Amino acid sequence: MEREKKPVGFIGLGAMGMGMARSLLEAGFEVKGYDINPEARARLAQAGGQGVEDCADAAEGVDPLIVMVLNAEQVETVLFGDAGASATLDPGSVVILSSTVAPAYAADLGARLAARDIMLIDAPVSGGTARAASGELSIMASGSPSAFEQAASVLDAMAANLYRMGDECGLGSVMKMINQLLAGVHLATMGEALAFAESAGADLEKVYEVICSSAGMSWMFQNRGPHVLKEDYTPHSAIDIWVKDLGIVLETGRDRRFPLPLSAAAHQLFLSASAQGYGRIDDAAVVKVYRSLAGSKEDES
Amino acid sequence: MEREKKPVGFIGLGAMGMGMARSLLEAGFEVKGYDINPEARARLAQAGGQGVEDCADAAEGVDPLIVMVLNAEQVETVLFGDAGASATLDPGSVVILSSTVAPAYAADLGARLAARDIMLIDAPVSGGTARAASGELSIMASGSPSAFEQAASVLDAMAANLYRMGDECGLGSVMKMINQLLAGVHLATMGEALAFAESAGADLEKVYEVICSSAGMSWMFQNRGPHVLKEDYTPHSAIDIWVKDLGIVLETGRDRRFPLPLSAAAHQLFLSASAQGYGRIDDAAVVKVYRSLAGSKEDES
Repeated sequence: MEREKKPVGFIGLGAMGMGMARSLLEAGFEVKGYDINPEARARLAQAGGQGVEDCADAAEGVDPLIVMVLNAEQVETVLFGDAGASATLDPGSVVILSSTVAPAYAADLGARLAARDIMLIDAPVSGGTARAASGELSIMASGSPSAFEQAASVLDAMAANLYRMGDECGLGSVMKMINQLLAGVHLATMGEALAFAESAGADLEKVYEVICSSAGMSWMFQNRGPHVLKEDYTPHSAIDIWVKDLGIVLETGRDRRFPLPLSAAAHQLFLSASAQGYGRIDDAAVVKVYRSLAGSKEDES
Repeated sequence: MEREKKPVGFIGLGAMGMGMARSLLEAGFEVKGYDINPEARARLAQAGGQGVEDCADAAEGVDPLIVMVLNAEQVETVLFGDAGASATLDPGSVVILSSTVAPAYAADLGARLAARDIMLIDAPVSGGTARAASGELSIMASGSPSAFEQAASVLDAMAANLYRMGDECGLGSVMKMINQLLAGVHLATMGEALAFAESAGADLEKVYEVICSSAGMSWMFQNRGPHVLKEDYTPHSAIDIWVKDLGIVLETGRDRRFPLPLSAAAHQLFLSASAQGYGRIDDAAVVKVYRSLAGSKEDES
């Protein structure tokens, strides 16, 4: 099939995007990539891909085009702005949107692209930069069966788990949003629990051990707890990611008139962490907000 | 050693206590037990123990005495009320308090019993009725090394995991409180996530599958999620348990001047569930509060 010989387009070569592009190269795909940062384009070229000068070029003659930028505003720019991808995308091609966006935005984008005979797969990812680079992401995706069929080999090259959430664009983003709701609240709750345990004189190493095999366990507690125990906030995932992702949760709740009291409370804690200067450090630093709320002195390290 | 030949005393033969008493009987201990409910005393006798008529009798000539009643108020009554256990406990004996109480109460009780030359082990448990009956509880315990030494074989008979949290009474209850804080907030968050996902048109079976292998996973989500999917609220652990246990968390936070915004928000949701008549049904029913908050019709089944 001629289609399978087309290169893959890639827009957004940050920590996640570059890993995904590399796993495509390793699977034998030709990759044409654009990023606003020229160094990222050069890194793609070094890895065996082709760095191009604008989004229109990244989208020309490719199928699918993968978009992995920060937010919906950037998606708009790269698709519909000056020298945007929509100007050059072939009719009948597929766009895979892997950015975390509001479900309503993904649904609307799907309709707008369909009007140009372009198929959208709403495909947010989970798994972090290491799994992005090894082609072992979880992808929570929705879109038409024909779009999935056409992009199957590309999705397979990036994903350890491809979850099909339905035919409508938006349902992939609903799944990601629900995961972020849970993970974000669990992370803030880890901060609440560890700071409170610390103030009550408990041995935090012991608390960590007991919780990891008890009903209070969460994936976030297990994964991020050690950052608090070691007081090491080298960013794996940053506080500001949760300001953004719980922001999407709350914005969607507001639009759908669905009250989300725990997500709202957790969002306030991440906002506070960001306000206190912790936006760019590891998200386990939400524990510091509790220490400041409780008036305890924070050792600066 | 003569001490090892003494029977074990047991006060509070509810679902958890009866299981613990049975696992002691199976391990070959003689058990003298009291419960306010005569049927529970009869069940203990049927299982091979001795049902007695009051707390003073349950405590006479035993070591250790295990107390597994509902709350601190009941602990006061069974130990210090009319025909209370403290009247007959031998000097030098051990009391194992397995009820979930505030850490400050456990610490204070330890001091009061020490003044009578009785050693307290602050030993709340986790694991549910099935693991209570099979002698496979997790016990989060604190107390003096000599108390632990004296009660070792009894603790071993009830526990799969015995976590030693320190020498001071109160630290066992801190551990349990931190576990309940996390588990309670995670449970309410499960309700928030599943009700929101449902309202956004997601397939809940699929959401459950994805979350169980994603960053949003918690032990409570994994364990209680199926109750929501099946709409089966046969009580395993009831809503009112969380009204009580998150109540202890918040009371301790208030006394220690430690703000706990997520625990407070979760407590309000369990209070609301109880107010809506769900106090005695399974705690996964907290999802119903979200449906009512969001104005969706609840099918009564």
